Amino acid sequence: MTQFEPGNPEFEAVVRSSFDRQAFMTHIGAALLSVTPGACEVGLDHRGELTQQHGFIHGGVVGAIVDTAMGYAGYSLAPPGSSVLTVEYKINLVSPADGGRLVARGAVVRAGRSLTVCRGEVFAINHGVEKLCAVASQTLMILADRTDGPAYNRP
Amino acid sequence: MTQFEPGNPEFEAVVRSSFDRQAFMTHIGAALLSVTPGACEVGLDHRGELTQQHGFIHGGVVGAIVDTAMGYAGYSLAPPGSSVLTVEYKINLVSPADGGRLVARGAVVRAGRSLTVCRGEVFAINHGVEKLCAVASQTLMILADRTDGPAYNRP
Amino acid sequence: MTQFEPGNPEFEAVVRSSFDRQAFMTHIGAALLSVTPGACEVGLDHRGELTQQHGFIHGGVVGAIVDTAMGYAGYSLAPPGSSVLTVEYKINLVSPADGGRLVARGAVVRAGRSLTVCRGEVFAINHGVEKLCAVASQTLMILADRTDGPAYNRP
Amino acid sequence: MTQFEPGNPEFEAVVRSSFDRQAFMTHIGAALLSVTPGACEVGLDHRGELTQQHGFIHGGVVGAIVDTAMGYAGYSLAPPGSSVLTVEYKINLVSPADGGRLVARGAVVRAGRSLTVCRGEVFAINHGVEKLCAVASQTLMILADRTDGPAYNRP
Repeated sequence: MTQFEPGNPEFEAVVRSSFDRQAFMTHIGAALLSVTPGACEVGLDHRGELTQQHGFIHGGVVGAIVDTAMGYAGYSLAPPGSSVLTVEYKINLVSPADGGRLVARGAVVRAGRSLTVCRGEVFAINHGVEKLCAVASQTLMILADRTDGPAYNRP
Repeated sequence: MTQFEPGNPEFEAVVRSSFDRQAFMTHIGAALLSVTPGACEVGLDHRGELTQQHGFIHGGVVGAIVDTAMGYAGYSLAPPGSSVLTVEYKINLVSPADGGRLVARGAVVRAGRSLTVCRGEVFAINHGVEKLCAVASQTLMILADRTDGPAYNRP
Repeated sequence: MTQFEPGNPEFEAVVRSSFDRQAFMTHIGAALLSVTPGACEVGLDHRGELTQQHGFIHGGVVGAIVDTAMGYAGYSLAPPGSSVLTVEYKINLVSPADGGRLVARGAVVRAGRSLTVCRGEVFAINHGVEKLCAVASQTLMILADRTDGPAYNRP
Repeated sequence: MTQFEPGNPEFEAVVRSSFDRQAFMTHIGAALLSVTPGACEVGLDHRGELTQQHGFIHGGVVGAIVDTAMGYAGYSLAPPGSSVLTVEYKINLVSPADGGRLVARGAVVRAGRSLTVCRGEVFAINHGVEKLCAVASQTLMILADRTDGPAYNRP
């Protein structure tokens, strides 16, 4: 497991503040469980309003929480005053997301000056047992000198 | 452009019924705009509760509506009594999803007996002008003899 | 179809020279069929040495030619003195690559200052009939002020 | 780490025989280093004929060896008399493939009756030091009752 150095001693406060400004994470009831240098966990309790036609959590929700977990894994290593955005992600849905709770875990594979690559997994948790339901990968762009707020210009 | 034959003369009613049972689509305010053999459009009006920290629509929401549009493009060609599920999708976010309205368009690339491959695009619409904000691709599995309802066993 | 302006009036000569320095393209017998602003075609005749265990062209070869076609589609729009490299690509193999000839077509979806997104298709050609065998997407990084030669530092 | 049971006691002989029939692997000089239930390693020594314009191993070759390593990781778990084919793969190239030797490692994430999902990594090895140069993911289709030979019909 690669050990990463945070790019900002305040990385945890910065990540938590950014997560709190993601209205969509609040809207679906997702919580930032943990953030360490190069890794992040997002949790989500089952809600009927998040399901697809088979009664499982919608694949788009699964994608959203793992995109977010991977993004903040990457952002935990970014220098002060920077922001990140998702360039692309891919997700393989390997079993139904039918847990009482989902947890998405993101981890940095390689952190670069301008691009960072992450991997992620999503597990469905029932009675304390985790079952893998998705694997994902992501490319992030690091935006130096862009505040993590409402306005930016995409490079 | 490939011309596809629907696998079920009732494809439109079947797709609309399935979409209506996707609680998550209702939760975010998405609407099924159109479905034709091998193609589907999903629309979404901007809502503050769907944004990320920069104020744009969350990449996970963009992924969710294009996953859905591609999935129903594929489902429009499926035989009666079958269901579909997403095996994987990938999305490249090419510009901020900052429209007053988003539209996701999915189209079948190849329809197989057990697997179907689709492509999709998402456009942000402002003052009637469409701007491409994401491109995606997807693999679907066709589940013969599985009802499009709450219970199934993944092959 | 988006119309693109080349970033360099000499784009065709620049792309052809770069392709010619790809030893691997020569090794497999691939040819640069055409390059226009934002688009590129690579052709490949069937050779027994390029096959997998079923006797079709290896998926890795199919990936290589469409990665190359997409990369040069992107490079056709890059400014003078720059280079490009592939950040990531994804390929869906939708039917066996069993043509007497394959043609890979790449096209730019969005050209940015630092990142460009492309799509591609591969067709197998038999008796003049084209059959789609793969679809792909790609993210490229534009390296300003890097010569398209042996030495560079990845950002 | 998940432990997998091979689907065929002869899995190693079956995989090695299939690899040996991949003419393209021979053509580029790739070797099957190891295969265990659910995992496979493919090695490749540097050759000038495999390079792209910067002098590194072509991204398409990197994709080909990791596609192969992941495919045989999946095939190691398949039942007797079956075959596998790649549905799709995605690769993120995270640093130049400039080793004296490359090694691609594939591992099964989830093995299903009809679909298997794998992950892979490629490392460049110089003076005994491994450096990550790519990460990948893949979906395989398991073809029951299809021999791993020249003729099959894609489902």
